[in-house]
Amino acid sequence: MLVRGDREYLVKPGEEFGTDLGVLEVPEDVDPGETLETHLGDEFRVRRLRGPDLFHHFERTGAPMVPRDVGLVLGETGVSTGDRVLDAGTGTGVLSAFVARAGATVVTYERNADFAEVARENMALAGVADRVEVRTGDVADDLESLVASEDPFDVLTLDTGDAPTVVERAPELLLEGGFVAVYSPFVEASREVVETAREVGLSDVRTRETIQREMDFDDRGSRPSTAPVGHTGYLTVARNE
Amino acid sequence: MLVRGDREYLVKPGEEFGTDLGVLEVPEDVDPGETLETHLGDEFRVRRLRGPDLFHHFERTGAPMVPRDVGLVLGETGVSTGDRVLDAGTGTGVLSAFVARAGATVVTYERNADFAEVARENMALAGVADRVEVRTGDVADDLESLVASEDPFDVLTLDTGDAPTVVERAPELLLEGGFVAVYSPFVEASREVVETAREVGLSDVRTRETIQREMDFDDRGSRPSTAPVGHTGYLTVARNE
Amino acid sequence: MLVRGDREYLVKPGEEFGTDLGVLEVPEDVDPGETLETHLGDEFRVRRLRGPDLFHHFERTGAPMVPRDVGLVLGETGVSTGDRVLDAGTGTGVLSAFVARAGATVVTYERNADFAEVARENMALAGVADRVEVRTGDVADDLESLVASEDPFDVLTLDTGDAPTVVERAPELLLEGGFVAVYSPFVEASREVVETAREVGLSDVRTRETIQREMDFDDRGSRPSTAPVGHTGYLTVARNE
Amino acid sequence: MLVRGDREYLVKPGEEFGTDLGVLEVPEDVDPGETLETHLGDEFRVRRLRGPDLFHHFERTGAPMVPRDVGLVLGETGVSTGDRVLDAGTGTGVLSAFVARAGATVVTYERNADFAEVARENMALAGVADRVEVRTGDVADDLESLVASEDPFDVLTLDTGDAPTVVERAPELLLEGGFVAVYSPFVEASREVVETAREVGLSDVRTRETIQREMDFDDRGSRPSTAPVGHTGYLTVARNE
Repeated sequence: MLVRGDREYLVKPGEEFGTDLGVLEVPEDVDPGETLETHLGDEFRVRRLRGPDLFHHFERTGAPMVPRDVGLVLGETGVSTGDRVLDAGTGTGVLSAFVARAGATVVTYERNADFAEVARENMALAGVADRVEVRTGDVADDLESLVASEDPFDVLTLDTGDAPTVVERAPELLLEGGFVAVYSPFVEASREVVETAREVGLSDVRTRETIQREMDFDDRGSRPSTAPVGHTGYLTVARNE
Repeated sequence: MLVRGDREYLVKPGEEFGTDLGVLEVPEDVDPGETLETHLGDEFRVRRLRGPDLFHHFERTGAPMVPRDVGLVLGETGVSTGDRVLDAGTGTGVLSAFVARAGATVVTYERNADFAEVARENMALAGVADRVEVRTGDVADDLESLVASEDPFDVLTLDTGDAPTVVERAPELLLEGGFVAVYSPFVEASREVVETAREVGLSDVRTRETIQREMDFDDRGSRPSTAPVGHTGYLTVARNE
Repeated sequence: MLVRGDREYLVKPGEEFGTDLGVLEVPEDVDPGETLETHLGDEFRVRRLRGPDLFHHFERTGAPMVPRDVGLVLGETGVSTGDRVLDAGTGTGVLSAFVARAGATVVTYERNADFAEVARENMALAGVADRVEVRTGDVADDLESLVASEDPFDVLTLDTGDAPTVVERAPELLLEGGFVAVYSPFVEASREVVETAREVGLSDVRTRETIQREMDFDDRGSRPSTAPVGHTGYLTVARNE
Repeated sequence: MLVRGDREYLVKPGEEFGTDLGVLEVPEDVDPGETLETHLGDEFRVRRLRGPDLFHHFERTGAPMVPRDVGLVLGETGVSTGDRVLDAGTGTGVLSAFVARAGATVVTYERNADFAEVARENMALAGVADRVEVRTGDVADDLESLVASEDPFDVLTLDTGDAPTVVERAPELLLEGGFVAVYSPFVEASREVVETAREVGLSDVRTRETIQREMDFDDRGSRPSTAPVGHTGYLTVARNE
């Protein structure tokens, strides 16, 4: 739930929060489109939170995955309602929140206890606390129990140096037909993931680099921007089949 | 619901269908992971349909949007559970099905009546017939009634030459904070969309081109593939705020 | 001829010039590798000027063409010793100087008289004043006389809004087998050049956009830089045959 | 010197050669623009050879460097008249011939004796046999004598697995201010070159990947081609200073 004037805030229903324009109480049953007033009489409009807002309003514990890369993970793995997703490492939690907002339930691992706590707060702000379980710890330490005691997952999403260790167990962690998506800025790390994926027999193993150019349209003409978006990461996708 | 041997078929539960290996009856209550037998005794495994499968198994009425571009639309607009989405033109319906599988309800317009019928079939195969309404006709003809009689939408997704006409009404069609995403292969068409979006006061108007390179990892080393993915389209995104 | 300490200067042999480290007299017969002293006793090393130095040491009258794009023009047109090249507009003159340094003679047009004067100075600094004639004026006004009174050129290089007007006469201006290369930041301008080139019967008409990414190699691994080079221009090349 | 009808041939002046249209004698003093007749009376036009023609008419002993990459080497190193260039490995010899046509003299090493012989033939066809010395052998074996007995070079151009061994001696092989350019398709090989260049104290060490997209201009609009040029190689450039 998002509230804004010329400012934007991410607030949970039922919460009271203070701005420089006064204190605002957000009712439990607030609806998008409503207007709320602070105790000083300044108006804020209520708006539904949208995925890209997470990128701007989550408290950050590192550089969050950009909407473009989140989208590529969603498109290449087809995460959808009812899916069970295993994610590591959580970081700021933008990917987990997007995935949960698409109807999936997520188990996500974050090594750093403070970061994990921030991620839990972020999930609550995004309204998906009930669908994302943020576990403090290293997913690599839990692989045995994940394989032994939990149902297989539909999708694994990995943004961690441990990725090859997890990919090694992907055939056991994943349902038949499930996908693993690994995100890494580095060539060598991506290569190690690809080699591991091939060794354990995953299919359709592909690593892609994405380059985006923004277009400038002005009176002189149309052209790619002179200030393009830089490299974020390589996305490796493989399928369990 | 997907069934396969070394072949893959997209079949609805409760359906009977014939292959060269014999006739297969798919029970209404079939579960992923089960094994089914044809009347000749050949086994097929049951697998849940995943988003990227749509790309390969939908009957095509044109070049469907590739998973990458579907993902970029999802990432940049944050389509999620409970959203109402207005889409045009339907085409093969891959985008509509992805969006519905993420929990949204979709109204989509397709000019060609035969294509619309195929798209309806595709939605049934994808298990989202109840969440995607395929309307035969031109969205541009329905703008008045869409604005007048329906609740505003969370997201507009446009892959049609009519896009500027629809974008012109985006402030009325969209909730506050909602997104419009327009996909076009051409510079001129994208420019027209951008100019219209600016004229009607949409914010964060951006057109991006996406270039992807697959990486080759072999014994000689790592490098971008000599056979990259070509241009698909420009994606223009704008927000109603 | 280039002289430097931890500073770099572009100086002609026989010239005297002042730095904050004292006055330096450069002999007419100075050789690369020599060491010269200012009147205060500070040493400067003599170095041969190299093409990429032009980019840093020419006095600028606008953004000069970057070495990458100069190189693409050289590679696609094969400018070489003995060629006659017609260039417009001169601008800072980096392209003309590179072309002359590869052994060609150049006639180049610059509309702005002050810029033309700076370009002449730059040619002298680059040691190619005898091979580059900088004409003040608009090449479009001189097309009749260029066609009528001069021998045909091997290559035309155009970085001016007038490009289509010149391309229209390319079959008369160029030797059989000669190339025209047009540089423009904009889609529309490039398109107009392409259409003109097709109309007048040039062959192998192609427009290319070049994207470069610098690689970062550090202890964590190898990856494309997060700060890539932006768009400079489209290069259209066509051949007279 | 190039002769063609609707066919193209690369022939030396003074040579006699046979086509399916009859035998053609090319005079020693033939001029571009002349028309020659075979003994059967079919006409061929004489045209000056241009750099990009080398790419099509050289006998190949492997994939030659494309004009684009040749151009990038020329642009980034500023090879020009009077330069001395050390090249390895020769391969088909396109780069050596371009460099010589820009007025430089070239010493180039080719391990394979048969390939070296073809390269020598190619240099003769390109009219630069007097400026390119093709040595049969491995440049790495000659480094001592190159450093000890020859004047330093202006530019090193390397397209060989040995590149790091040569780069290690670049400070001795190059004049002050000289450039080394190394071309490799692979990330790992490029990285090794960069690390070596840094270790021996070269400056401005940069590796760049070049991506080119051709533009399609047709009645429907303007867009990047769906069939782009693939990866060729990374170009690493460093300077001796």
